[in-house]
Formats: sequence, C-alpha cells, structure tokens
Amino acid sequence: MRVGILGGGQLARMLALAGLPMGIGTIAFDPSADACAQDITELMIAAYDDTQALKRLCNKVDVITIENENIPSASLRLIQQSVAVYPGERALSTSQDRLIEKQCFTALDIPCAPFCDITSKADLQHACEKLGLPAILKTRRFGYDGKGQFKINQQTDIDIAWNTLGEYPCILEAMIDFDKEISIIATRNISKESVFYPLTKNTHVNGILHRSEAPDDTSSQLQQQAEAYAQKLMDHLNYVGTLAIEFFVTDHQLIANEFAPRVHNSGHWTIEGAVTSQFENHLRAILNLPLGSTAITSGTILENCIGELPDINEVLKNPNSHLHDYGKSSRPGRKVGHITTLKAS
Amino acid sequence: MRVGILGGGQLARMLALAGLPMGIGTIAFDPSADACAQDITELMIAAYDDTQALKRLCNKVDVITIENENIPSASLRLIQQSVAVYPGERALSTSQDRLIEKQCFTALDIPCAPFCDITSKADLQHACEKLGLPAILKTRRFGYDGKGQFKINQQTDIDIAWNTLGEYPCILEAMIDFDKEISIIATRNISKESVFYPLTKNTHVNGILHRSEAPDDTSSQLQQQAEAYAQKLMDHLNYVGTLAIEFFVTDHQLIANEFAPRVHNSGHWTIEGAVTSQFENHLRAILNLPLGSTAITSGTILENCIGELPDINEVLKNPNSHLHDYGKSSRPGRKVGHITTLKAS
Repeated sequence: MRVGILGGGQLARMLALAGLPMGIGTIAFDPSADACAQDITELMIAAYDDTQALKRLCNKVDVITIENENIPSASLRLIQQSVAVYPGERALSTSQDRLIEKQCFTALDIPCAPFCDITSKADLQHACEKLGLPAILKTRRFGYDGKGQFKINQQTDIDIAWNTLGEYPCILEAMIDFDKEISIIATRNISKESVFYPLTKNTHVNGILHRSEAPDDTSSQLQQQAEAYAQKLMDHLNYVGTLAIEFFVTDHQLIANEFAPRVHNSGHWTIEGAVTSQFENHLRAILNLPLGSTAITSGTILENCIGELPDINEVLKNPNSHLHDYGKSSRPGRKVGHITTLKAS
Repeated sequence: MRVGILGGGQLARMLALAGLPMGIGTIAFDPSADACAQDITELMIAAYDDTQALKRLCNKVDVITIENENIPSASLRLIQQSVAVYPGERALSTSQDRLIEKQCFTALDIPCAPFCDITSKADLQHACEKLGLPAILKTRRFGYDGKGQFKINQQTDIDIAWNTLGEYPCILEAMIDFDKEISIIATRNISKESVFYPLTKNTHVNGILHRSEAPDDTSSQLQQQAEAYAQKLMDHLNYVGTLAIEFFVTDHQLIANEFAPRVHNSGHWTIEGAVTSQFENHLRAILNLPLGSTAITSGTILENCIGELPDINEVLKNPNSHLHDYGKSSRPGRKVGHITTLKAS
C-alpha cells in the first residue's frame, strides 16, 4: 500500500512516520526542494499544477491525500481521473474559501460568527455597520496562521484594512468575544465509519497555535455537540480522512471558526496521548481500514516550537516530554517542531 | 546526531523509527542485503568483521550501538578506537556466552538455575547426575529463540544430546519448574541515570516469544527485586543503553534465565503502552540525553506474528490494536511483525 501526499511539510512527515510501522509507504509531492518530509519519505519536487508530475505520482501510488488546503482544485480533478483522492475536491474547495466555508456552516446549522461577503470598499463600510466593530477582514483564500487578516477596531481602520487586503476577495467577520478556543479532530473512513477525539483546548499567539491541551476540561455536552457538528460536516462533504474544526466557546456554546480538511496541529498530541494518532487514523481512513480508538491514554500538553528548536537536553529534562524536530531551518514565525508532555506520572 | 546500529533487523528498524521524530538519524550495518531496517534507514551491507566497512561506518556516525548480541567482540574493540560503542564489549561478551553470563549472575548474587560447564561427554554425564533430570543442554554461544538447546529428560537422551550439540562448548542447566516467565526492561545512560519498566509477563511457544503482557499482575516486591538485580548488573557492566533480563518466577522468587544487552522483544509494548518506548530510551541513553518516563499509559498485550503476517483488516478490527509489519518475507518460525493491543477503553 502506497499513499501519495500532496504537500511535503511536517504534516506529510508525520503521516509518513505513522505509515512506516504498518508497512504503508508514502511519497510526498511538494514544490520546494527543502520540504521537510524528505527526511522520512521519498519526495517528488514539482509544482502543484504540474500535470505531468501529478500523473507520474498517480502511477506510483494507490491513493492520494493532501497535507495542506492550498492545493489547486484543478489538480485534484486531474488526479481523481486515475487515482482516488481523499479528502476530495468538495471538502478542499469548501475549506479553501472562507465565504463558501461559512455558507456551508450556515447551511448545516453549525453556528459561526456573523459574516459578510466583501467585494468593494462600499461593501466593507456597510458590513462594518451591520456587524459592528471590532470586526475582522479576512481574505477568502490562502490565509493560515493568522496571515491574510486585518482587525478593524474603529471606523478609521477601514481605509487601511481595504488598502492592505482589498485587492483580494474578502469576507468581514464579527469578532467573537470567546471564553476559550477548542478544536475537535475527527476521522471518517471510506466505509463511513466515524471516530472523534476528545476536545482540545488551544491557545494562539500572534495567530499561530502556541499550545494545545487535551482533554479540555469541558462538559460532555460540548463534546457531544462538537461531535454532532463534525459528523454533519463530514457526512455533507462525504469526507474521508482526518479533519479538524476549530471552535470558539462563548457562554458554553460552540461557534465554528474554520475547518481544516487534513490532520491538524491541535491534534499532534494524539501521537503520544491517544490510543491511535490522528495520522494513523487518517491513513487507515483513506485505505478503508478499520479506524483505531481515539481514547486518551494520558492527558497531554502540546507546545509548538516557533522560529527555532529549544535545546533537546532542556526539553527532555522533563521525563514526560517528547521532542518532535521537523528538520526545518530556523526562521521567525515558522513551526519547526513541537513538544508533547504527558501528564502520566 | 547520527547513530550506527550493528544489525539491520526489526530492532534496528524500530530504533531508527524512534529516532526520526527527535531528529536522530541512523545507519544500520548488516551482512544481509535483505535486512529489513532498510525500509526506514540507510543500510550498509557488509560482514560484521569487515574492518574497512566498519571504519567507514565509524566515519559517518557519532555513536554506535548493537541490535543483536552476535556481533564479534573484535569488531567492537576496533570500533571503540574511534567511536564510542554502547553497550560496550564487556556487556556483549558476557551475554554472548551462557557460561560467563551465569558466572556473572552468580558473582552478583542474582539467583539463576544451577549449571555446569560441559566440555566432554563425561562432563555431561556427571552434570546430569549432579543437577538431576530433566535438564537442558545449551550451546554457550549463538543460541536464540530456543535454538542450540536440547532437553535431556532421561539417561538415554544423553547420547543424542551429545551427538546433537557436543561439537560446541555447552553448559547443562537444571530445569526450573516455574510458575511464569517475566522480564524487566531497564535503561541506563552515560550519566549513570537508570530507569526501569514495569515487569512484563511472557509466554513462549517452541522457544519463541509468543505473547507479552504488561504490567504483570505481580507484587511490588518482585518489581523491586527485579529492579535491584537489573541495577546491579548494569552497574557491574557499566552498561549504557536498554537491557532486558528474563526471569523465571517460582514460588514468588526470581530466577534469572538470561539477559540481552539490547532492546528486547518483550519490551515492544512500550511503543504504545509507556510514556517513553524502550527504543527512544535506548537512543537517549547512548547519546547521554535525559531518560524518559517508563510509566505505563495503558495496560498492553503484545503478540508476535510468527511465520507470516495476519490480514491487517482483521487485526485492526479491534480498535485498540496496532500492527507492526517488519517488512520481512514470510518464513516458518520467523518474527515478521507484532500486534500491540491496549487495554484502554
């Protein structure tokens, strides 16, 4: 069994690692010759829209998946003529565009922040009045880790916001005054079997995930609600693979922020802290193997290493800690690794 | 950090896998072009006594370790002139020879079965009288998985035993009428820090480990006793790395059977069932990193796949099970993989 992975970053790296014990091989496909998955697996270096290279990948693998949502839909359509690709184009195109994503949430009765489609400065001015300030202007596409966002605190910010992002299609979102941020990781396989991980509490710094803690000390009611939303979304998209939905929690209610049609940073703790990791379950899902238990074996804290790795000796002084080094060079704001710390004695 | 591993079987494979997340690279060294670690790590194919190849390995790595005990001592002596090798020649040569091993246990007051050195048929006849029958004739060297052993039930077996194994130096061991077999896995690093895993209960079939269960439902007194013996042995050998001692339990007493100066089959459950696996702790030990917690996160059962792999779909129907495929071809009696099943809900 061989899996092609569009994208060759740390998610591809950890997918490849999860496959190795089970005898599942992988090939990562990435435009960058530096893609860090190559320490673990074969890497094909080509642009995501290089049709000849995509065809070569198809000839080498049994199934194809993605590790980031910025893969062109056209590439997925090309691939699925010869090899199954999970998650499919519908999930990808929905998540790629914040407007379509929010419309999808709304259609499924999954609560999300009020939003407006913005195609002109006049739209933006009207939307600011309608939603109230502060609000956040976000590009519909290609945003991640807080990029492509501008917070509008007051009327005078509107011009700057428009000058900064107005050249792209945008939406304006009402600000949610949340108590905390949580996410649910879920996996659904080809046979439509679904599993859900316990909710994870997330802390972002400068728009980048800084810390996740699982399980969140939340009510079982929120867990059930999050699972119901994830189930609805996965069924609607006929989703296959692991997916994450990020929520704001406000007044014990869940407000969906966004979903990611892939394994997710806030689920990295599952490598050590759950019976089956999100990566292993993703591979099982797309190969239509039975899914593994998502039960927690130990409460777990995940901390991202942003910019550079800490000294491994310092990290491992805590006997419950593990260091994950993505093999990436240091760069401000870059996720270069993570630390998992189990609460087990 | 790069580690050379003498031996390229499944233990090298799992050591290499444990290193990858931490950014620890490996090179396996094995005489066989089929060595299964090559799916995971670079493989150098050369005889264990090929001094030129060993020197090339030394030039490529920071430290060298072993994954089986049948490496020539002379090769270790050569290596340690340029690169540190853990565990060292003393541990290896002690474990390679059942007579020296038993003498070591005896010198350290670690109880073991009564034994006699056998160099002639007359020795064997005397020893059978002295130890009583049944007893087991074992070659001093190169025995594993029950190979190189002959059980002498009655006087008339002595001739057959001698004809079968008498050409090799042997020992005769008294049979231990044991209640169960258990093992302790322990790790000691360069800074002489030691950690011990909970005792594992083992079941052998035809001399091959069939099933391990951790933790064993044993008394804390036996755990303490096993740790004390392991500590004594590791201190005596100035041991660095992970080690296993197999014991018989009879009348709530531990009788040492043998030790293995390496990661051990009965510790494979630690990959999923402990905070830190025996493989990760071995790497940490030989690189003088702090050792990780050996606490159990979930009771775990390990079953070896002997001869051939089961159908992965059947294995994974149990949501608490994981399949480890060593990438080896099927062959009767060969360990080709293992299944770990957590007791977590």
